[in-house]
Amino acid sequence: MSEFALEILASDGAARRGRLQTAHGSMETPAFMPVGTAGTVKAMTADAVAATGAQMVLGNTYHLMLRPGAETIQRLGGLHEFMNWPGPILTDSGGFQVMSLSKLRTMTEDGVTFQSHIDGASHTLTPESSVEIQRLLDADVTMVLDECPAMSDDKDAIAKSMELTHRWAERSKQAFALRPGYGLFGIVQGGVFDDLREQSAAALTGIGFDGYAVGGLAIGEGQEVMFGVLDGLVSHLPEGAPRYLMGVGTPADLVGAVARGIDMFDCVMPTRSGRTGKGFTARGSINIRNARHTEDARPIDEACTCPACTGHSRAYLHHLFKADEILGPMLLTWHNLHYYQSLMAGLRVAIEAGALQEFSNEFHARQALGDIEPA
Amino acid sequence: MSEFALEILASDGAARRGRLQTAHGSMETPAFMPVGTAGTVKAMTADAVAATGAQMVLGNTYHLMLRPGAETIQRLGGLHEFMNWPGPILTDSGGFQVMSLSKLRTMTEDGVTFQSHIDGASHTLTPESSVEIQRLLDADVTMVLDECPAMSDDKDAIAKSMELTHRWAERSKQAFALRPGYGLFGIVQGGVFDDLREQSAAALTGIGFDGYAVGGLAIGEGQEVMFGVLDGLVSHLPEGAPRYLMGVGTPADLVGAVARGIDMFDCVMPTRSGRTGKGFTARGSINIRNARHTEDARPIDEACTCPACTGHSRAYLHHLFKADEILGPMLLTWHNLHYYQSLMAGLRVAIEAGALQEFSNEFHARQALGDIEPA
Repeated sequence: MSEFALEILASDGAARRGRLQTAHGSMETPAFMPVGTAGTVKAMTADAVAATGAQMVLGNTYHLMLRPGAETIQRLGGLHEFMNWPGPILTDSGGFQVMSLSKLRTMTEDGVTFQSHIDGASHTLTPESSVEIQRLLDADVTMVLDECPAMSDDKDAIAKSMELTHRWAERSKQAFALRPGYGLFGIVQGGVFDDLREQSAAALTGIGFDGYAVGGLAIGEGQEVMFGVLDGLVSHLPEGAPRYLMGVGTPADLVGAVARGIDMFDCVMPTRSGRTGKGFTARGSINIRNARHTEDARPIDEACTCPACTGHSRAYLHHLFKADEILGPMLLTWHNLHYYQSLMAGLRVAIEAGALQEFSNEFHARQALGDIEPA
Repeated sequence: MSEFALEILASDGAARRGRLQTAHGSMETPAFMPVGTAGTVKAMTADAVAATGAQMVLGNTYHLMLRPGAETIQRLGGLHEFMNWPGPILTDSGGFQVMSLSKLRTMTEDGVTFQSHIDGASHTLTPESSVEIQRLLDADVTMVLDECPAMSDDKDAIAKSMELTHRWAERSKQAFALRPGYGLFGIVQGGVFDDLREQSAAALTGIGFDGYAVGGLAIGEGQEVMFGVLDGLVSHLPEGAPRYLMGVGTPADLVGAVARGIDMFDCVMPTRSGRTGKGFTARGSINIRNARHTEDARPIDEACTCPACTGHSRAYLHHLFKADEILGPMLLTWHNLHYYQSLMAGLRVAIEAGALQEFSNEFHARQALGDIEPA
């Protein structure tokens, strides 16, 4: 079994082209990881996810610990076997969903007690129990439990929260069992404050992790502010470790963050959008429910080679969404994930060629063109 | 382009093994046609439908005329192009759904006026307009508009309805444009009365059709009564034309009806069951939502080679259904269609081998065993 490690193959400015080795295979970076919340990338078979080019998927600890339960998944052979995904899996710590989904949370130094949004049952998540749950799931990448403060919190509150996250990170490190090919990532917090972010990077690198995530962004601060945080932060993270921007983002977010040295992303955007009728194209996004697609014989994106675009018209997809047919979300999710993976593949090639700036310029120029109106 | 024709390759008792040639390719019979109501076999890509072994699918004229409209589908290249199904397509006449789904129906000698269940708009379906809509859809098999009386109707009412169906069949025949590879099927009515069924067969064969459907069954009369109708009827249908039992049925219905000389079937059962958690197996059906599957590591059917069974446990499918994940209906629909197509393939091989009785005995013996309890 391979050691858990990021090999840097090329770089272009701050951007890096790498390969992350894990216990369940490797992932070419920069990479986008589709979100498989409850052990399934919604509306996609595992084979279809792999066919889009995805090499690693994300599972949500909060959802899986509540249903079907981490012990159940372990008894069934782990999350890879359970969800028929033989490749690498990253699981989050559960903390973010506790904050966004559960009821009646109580935070203490020890951890967080909450009521399940499914059945109201009480559960506790501590740094140690989160690491243990992720071990039961057999995640290749385990994330430390962190606290993600609200956008509206003042700097003192964000600093206090960050310090708790650092203490939890230390406890997570102690709790994490070393196994070849398995890695533990720390999460940098500190809101939009460069000095806090720098402190957080220092604290986490002091503890020492296999990778470093940037948390607490993409929560409403806007792209410019987010990029500003990355500009200040990334140079304080170790060169040789993967950098993961959590919960990001739009295609333009990915292009800009890769240029700033981020290696890994996850976001529900391509999958959630695929279920609500938003499709991503080289010329910006379209809403397939819009009446102008009623008799539009073109595919979603004429340059796209995904199964949705090679076999189906916008008119057909429009019809499927109007008729509430499951195949609509299935095909549009497939297309969107294919679009995201193609974008990442393009970024990787551009970095190798030392042409990331040109790639980025071309990307933005095309996005600005807007969709071609039907004839 | 081939002529529309059924070639009989082998027979075993009343059962026939054939090959139906159409404008869009051939279909091995006896055959089960998945139902693609609104231009999609629910929760399946067209490629997946083909991968189960299906060679012909059914489209519902009622649904497609209301949304997106037959003219729209014609402008987009016809139903094959629209739904990415290059193979043969059979469309029904729309009559059955008018009766079961629409509001405020008015029947006259001319046809039926009804309000759309989608937006309340008024539409009229006549024998001629139904044939025309099916021509716009580019159906390989067009069905005549018929009236399907209720189980509870008395013999006089059923005879009157049958006679209307015959007059409509004559008008449909007049309206149908002859094109190589395209066929028009008449529909035998007459309820559960052998003499009416015989009259109906005589009237329709007098008009002359490319195939003969048996309508008005599988509406609550029970399997024994249905088989009794087939026993009395089938010898009155022409040897060389395909025989289609509409809206049937369970696996046992298919086995029994094939033995009685039926060549074609359609039913929502495998797809609808797939969305509600019922899975078909060689040892009978299971409800995947049942708690006993919570940690059941076995596939739905250990002998099955479908993607749902080769990659996933019952426990995983159980989880997907409990979590309302789209992948649950996707996988179970795929399995059920695969099961139905495998059953038909088995029946075809058995007829070729002159071993249909043995096949049927073995089928019933296995079904009677019931599901193996988890260890």
